[in-house]
Amino acid sequence: MSLLVVGSVAFDSVKTPFGEVDEVLGGSATYFSTAASYFTKVSLVAVVGEDFPEEHLNFLVGRGINIDGIERSAGRTFRWKGEYSYQLNEAKTLDTQLNVFESFHPNLPESYRKVPVVFLANIDPNLQLEVLKQVEKPKLVACDTMNFWIEGKLDALIQTLASVDILIINDGEARELAQEVNLVKAAKKIMAYGPGVLVVKQGEYGALMFNGETIFSAPAFPLEQVFDPTGAGDSFAGGFMGYLATCNEIDDVAIRQAVVYGSTMASFNVEAFSLDRMRALKQEEIKSRFQAFKALTAFENI
Amino acid sequence: MSLLVVGSVAFDSVKTPFGEVDEVLGGSATYFSTAASYFTKVSLVAVVGEDFPEEHLNFLVGRGINIDGIERSAGRTFRWKGEYSYQLNEAKTLDTQLNVFESFHPNLPESYRKVPVVFLANIDPNLQLEVLKQVEKPKLVACDTMNFWIEGKLDALIQTLASVDILIINDGEARELAQEVNLVKAAKKIMAYGPGVLVVKQGEYGALMFNGETIFSAPAFPLEQVFDPTGAGDSFAGGFMGYLATCNEIDDVAIRQAVVYGSTMASFNVEAFSLDRMRALKQEEIKSRFQAFKALTAFENI
Repeated sequence: MSLLVVGSVAFDSVKTPFGEVDEVLGGSATYFSTAASYFTKVSLVAVVGEDFPEEHLNFLVGRGINIDGIERSAGRTFRWKGEYSYQLNEAKTLDTQLNVFESFHPNLPESYRKVPVVFLANIDPNLQLEVLKQVEKPKLVACDTMNFWIEGKLDALIQTLASVDILIINDGEARELAQEVNLVKAAKKIMAYGPGVLVVKQGEYGALMFNGETIFSAPAFPLEQVFDPTGAGDSFAGGFMGYLATCNEIDDVAIRQAVVYGSTMASFNVEAFSLDRMRALKQEEIKSRFQAFKALTAFENI
Repeated sequence: MSLLVVGSVAFDSVKTPFGEVDEVLGGSATYFSTAASYFTKVSLVAVVGEDFPEEHLNFLVGRGINIDGIERSAGRTFRWKGEYSYQLNEAKTLDTQLNVFESFHPNLPESYRKVPVVFLANIDPNLQLEVLKQVEKPKLVACDTMNFWIEGKLDALIQTLASVDILIINDGEARELAQEVNLVKAAKKIMAYGPGVLVVKQGEYGALMFNGETIFSAPAFPLEQVFDPTGAGDSFAGGFMGYLATCNEIDDVAIRQAVVYGSTMASFNVEAFSLDRMRALKQEEIKSRFQAFKALTAFENI
């Protein structure tokens, strides 16, 4: 099945203990669609400014991504600037410039409206709802969100949650959304809002997936070189949703494997700045790391 | 094989968001030997004061633990007082009274000296070395340590590490011991000191086990009720070493399963204050939770 994503396409400036980059290609929808493009056909909805270079659009097209839904508006592209300490687990945001994103209202091209799998990346839940109104009976809808919307747009977010099958957020966000420290309890509260499946990303510790009463735990891949965690969560979601879009039946095993494919894509992404690792990534490497996750977690019949 | 442990037997006073207990049974060797007693015969080496009640000794004997190596000294028993916030991931130590532990020098009963599996719980590395001098060619030696000894007794600790097969510590300690933030790099540095196997406990996130070039990752069991994390690490070590002591061959699969048995015992321990959950724990519950770990981590052939 093909996959629709709405989110940000942006310029990131990032500093980690291992280096620094200035105004490189970034944004949630960019990371998501690049990771997902290894699995299925992706249609991207976003807005960029007049300053956004053809080169970056060509990269996306080169990955087979449909960019008909990228609107070019008067003004500057969304910019984010952040810094990581040696712990690498959380970015300190130094600057956010919404620019063209400030007045963005997604308007889906006709060809996008029947896409069966939809991912609403981390944007204003009101925009997420606008997208949902424009798609025709999708088979599977998932979304992301962040503390900013939990704190500022809770009502709209709860409306979005009522319409999605899967929510993918990090552990801090899950705790804040549920107002509950214990993750198992928090998951139950969040799933009561709508999503039957909740994926809780835990950064370097991996991810927990709640599916009704069952829980699946996947580690992050232990890496000797982590260069830049920017985009790890979006790459995770891209691998996760990209794999699910290839499944005939979206049952518990499929969702578990999707979590591992998500972790696989995230693990590659953090090996370099921006999308640089993805530029060189091969299908065989993805297969091989998925196998490595088995070796990492098996404790019988190895 | 039977198992020898040296460590503390103590009184703990603990406050968590869910309650408070005063001068209850605690100590690294207590948690360790109780958890290990579900797997094998345990011989305990420790010191208690004149104030230590028969009732606690009877509990240990009731678990089949050999307490011939518990010395009763003039003075008061070791006491620890700590508090946990809602996060429950790290105790804030409010008070430590070494008491009889201050002048303790382990003196192994004759019957202990040929025990084939040895665990040196978290005590002064000089005492760990004293114990190693008194045992005759053990087949397997493991140890624990903590920041206090890494900072204050590094030379003795490095001597201990040169004599052990397995080191079991938490992630913060691993990073401090190796002076390296990246855990994969830290593991390599630490294993160069001696231990062929390193188990890194990550609290609520589980554990990583490094065995030469291979890595195994096990989650912590997701619990809806965590009452008191005190003793989780020692219960982990007890389940881990207890299971290994039952294995004819200590190969990679055995060590992986031992990690899961360790996580199993830790997951029970945190369900109540002190050793209260262990007092009621049944073999069938251990088996059943070990199986639950498979369901938690499997992503094919479920």
